[in-house]
Amino acid sequence: MTESPAGATPDEEYRLAAVDLLGVIAYGELSAFERLAEDAKLAPTIEDKMAVGAMATAEFAHLQRVCERLTRLGADPGAAMRTFQPGFDAFHDHTAPADFYEGLIKAYVGDGLAADFYREIAAYLDPETREVIISSLENTGQSAEYIVRRVREGIREDHRLGGRLALWGRRLMGEALTQAQQVAGERDALSALLAGGVDRPGLDLAALGRMFTRLTERHAERMAALGLDA
Amino acid sequence: MTESPAGATPDEEYRLAAVDLLGVIAYGELSAFERLAEDAKLAPTIEDKMAVGAMATAEFAHLQRVCERLTRLGADPGAAMRTFQPGFDAFHDHTAPADFYEGLIKAYVGDGLAADFYREIAAYLDPETREVIISSLENTGQSAEYIVRRVREGIREDHRLGGRLALWGRRLMGEALTQAQQVAGERDALSALLAGGVDRPGLDLAALGRMFTRLTERHAERMAALGLDA
Repeated sequence: MTESPAGATPDEEYRLAAVDLLGVIAYGELSAFERLAEDAKLAPTIEDKMAVGAMATAEFAHLQRVCERLTRLGADPGAAMRTFQPGFDAFHDHTAPADFYEGLIKAYVGDGLAADFYREIAAYLDPETREVIISSLENTGQSAEYIVRRVREGIREDHRLGGRLALWGRRLMGEALTQAQQVAGERDALSALLAGGVDRPGLDLAALGRMFTRLTERHAERMAALGLDA
Repeated sequence: MTESPAGATPDEEYRLAAVDLLGVIAYGELSAFERLAEDAKLAPTIEDKMAVGAMATAEFAHLQRVCERLTRLGADPGAAMRTFQPGFDAFHDHTAPADFYEGLIKAYVGDGLAADFYREIAAYLDPETREVIISSLENTGQSAEYIVRRVREGIREDHRLGGRLALWGRRLMGEALTQAQQVAGERDALSALLAGGVDRPGLDLAALGRMFTRLTERHAERMAALGLDA
């Protein structure tokens, strides 16, 4: 950790916020890994299992990099993740996919939303932590391509699937926002990071509103790519 | 593929046997990956989840190397694996772990047995295929250490656990042998490889018996390392 973006010297408040953010990303990746690997069992063919397994493995590799950064910031990765376990576990319990396609959409919509959100927040972090976060979001292009192709194939085979999956996408977005709001409300350090300080720019309400608009627009674009109404 | 170990030119029978063997290893690794990742959900702590997740990810990385070799041998990896899906799926259905410790022992005993068996058979293959198989069995030392430590901890905390886990280890060995026997009986190319040919050494009944003895001795050693009777 070197400097916060505004050039202020690193302080404990900032370090706690960075640890919080990395902790939420890490546990998100660990739980995504577990659920993706579980979803691989729903995959109809071995080729689908391989594709979903590769996505799960990529999540785990990212997780390992985030944990290294947590250790370098003087934090215990397990402890940093533990804080966010209840929120993510609740999200996953409320959004257990009923079939392979729901699992694919969950991976696509959930990862996409998380990636957009972390990218927005990473702008407020020191360059090294930002680099770890941004690179932990990479290499998802190939899986996105596979998911879009596979979901479109599924809808071509069974037209009723489209309506169900569109509803599913909306439910995922709703559940994700509910959990995110609760997490943000409970974590003072994260909120402080977003709010900024005397020596650090933050997000005012108007900026938060614009960020929220960008996140929902990107979500709608992803649903459209799948051939679904957002 | 270059030459069979006895210096005979590669023939179609040999290629089919190699594809069979790589196919069985690949599907074994894919299903081990899925089950391990599922077992990570049984893990009591985030640190346990990380350890089991790392094992699952390592299985998947090996799988990818075996698939590359299958492709280079002119085989479709999915098709090569599909043959062995029913056997492995039956094994896993019959051996669903009831708790975290049963999952750990299954990983340790199952991976160990598979590794010993594949190492024995690899001796009858061309150097390149052998190298892919041997290297796909590496890097399991660290997970073995973790499992032994974790299971011994569990038994210290709850003495009744030891008896249950010893029974579990015996059941795993029995189920694995049942499935392996069925697979070998159904696959002519694999059996032919083991039996050898005019230009290739094979295993006679006495040699098969010795191999079986070695496999059960190694299994007993693993159980002893865990502090359990075989």
